[in-house]
Amino acid sequence: MQTTIRIIGIDPGLRRTGWGIIETLGNSLRFVASGTVTSDGETDLASRLCQLHDGLADVVHSYQPQEAAVEQTFVNKDATATLKLGQARGIAMLVPARAGLRVAEYAPNAVKKAVIGVGHGEKQQIHMMLKVLMPKAEFKGNDAADALAIAICHAHNRQAVTSRLAALAG
Amino acid sequence: MQTTIRIIGIDPGLRRTGWGIIETLGNSLRFVASGTVTSDGETDLASRLCQLHDGLADVVHSYQPQEAAVEQTFVNKDATATLKLGQARGIAMLVPARAGLRVAEYAPNAVKKAVIGVGHGEKQQIHMMLKVLMPKAEFKGNDAADALAIAICHAHNRQAVTSRLAALAG
Repeated sequence: MQTTIRIIGIDPGLRRTGWGIIETLGNSLRFVASGTVTSDGETDLASRLCQLHDGLADVVHSYQPQEAAVEQTFVNKDATATLKLGQARGIAMLVPARAGLRVAEYAPNAVKKAVIGVGHGEKQQIHMMLKVLMPKAEFKGNDAADALAIAICHAHNRQAVTSRLAALAG
Repeated sequence: MQTTIRIIGIDPGLRRTGWGIIETLGNSLRFVASGTVTSDGETDLASRLCQLHDGLADVVHSYQPQEAAVEQTFVNKDATATLKLGQARGIAMLVPARAGLRVAEYAPNAVKKAVIGVGHGEKQQIHMMLKVLMPKAEFKGNDAADALAIAICHAHNRQAVTSRLAALAG
């Protein structure tokens, strides 16, 4: 028997961390909510990380997702930017893990492939495909859209893992 | 009137995060405790970040420091290593900040300068000077020693800031 699974996708960033909640049942996807948690660039780093933590913890508490997925991002060009992203990403993984959720990680090209069918593409293509896959989806800005795409990627991949385990067991 | 301030220094790392607690009163330094929080390299990243979080939260809860200092580290050679460090560093800053502590950041050369007088030097020199500055200091390994050095760096710098403010006010 299939059960509905509620998934949170998170696109981490120090200034803006996108989040998207979807539900998956078999092959169907349902949009639940999306948004962006921001930190105040005028304040110190520790306070900004607290802002991201508290914002994400509120989302997890409000929507009670059962599984989480976070994008595996690299910023090769710039060590300072990579360190900043890493700090935000640490918070993005900690919050669902502390709430008892398993946290999956997906590379950016896996996320794009799950949503638009290929491993590369424009932001506009992702926005368009989100609307095709989930007509009721609402998202403001790229961060929330990317977070929804990450959640969809997990919905596809968790199912593949489950089917393979079922085939092995059967 | 001078009051004793208890400081936690943290040297973040995904595998090993060093911590050191000292007290400062005027120019005097007193060793309180030091140690290392480790994460299990066999488990997934989110669980490892939880292990670091819980370990550091225990230390902050047990020793009740009033101020925190974290090293500002870069790993320029390797984006993957920088991202890993960033994730651990995010946790190292979040834990004291959530406990209501101000979290100062110091560059590695500032930490070395505070302890051995110059901005570069061997680990052995830091170990030796820790024993000179705080004869009762106990530390196992470089991570705990570095964390104590970061705490000392903050003890020196917070005092300089306080004296300057006092001079301005006076």
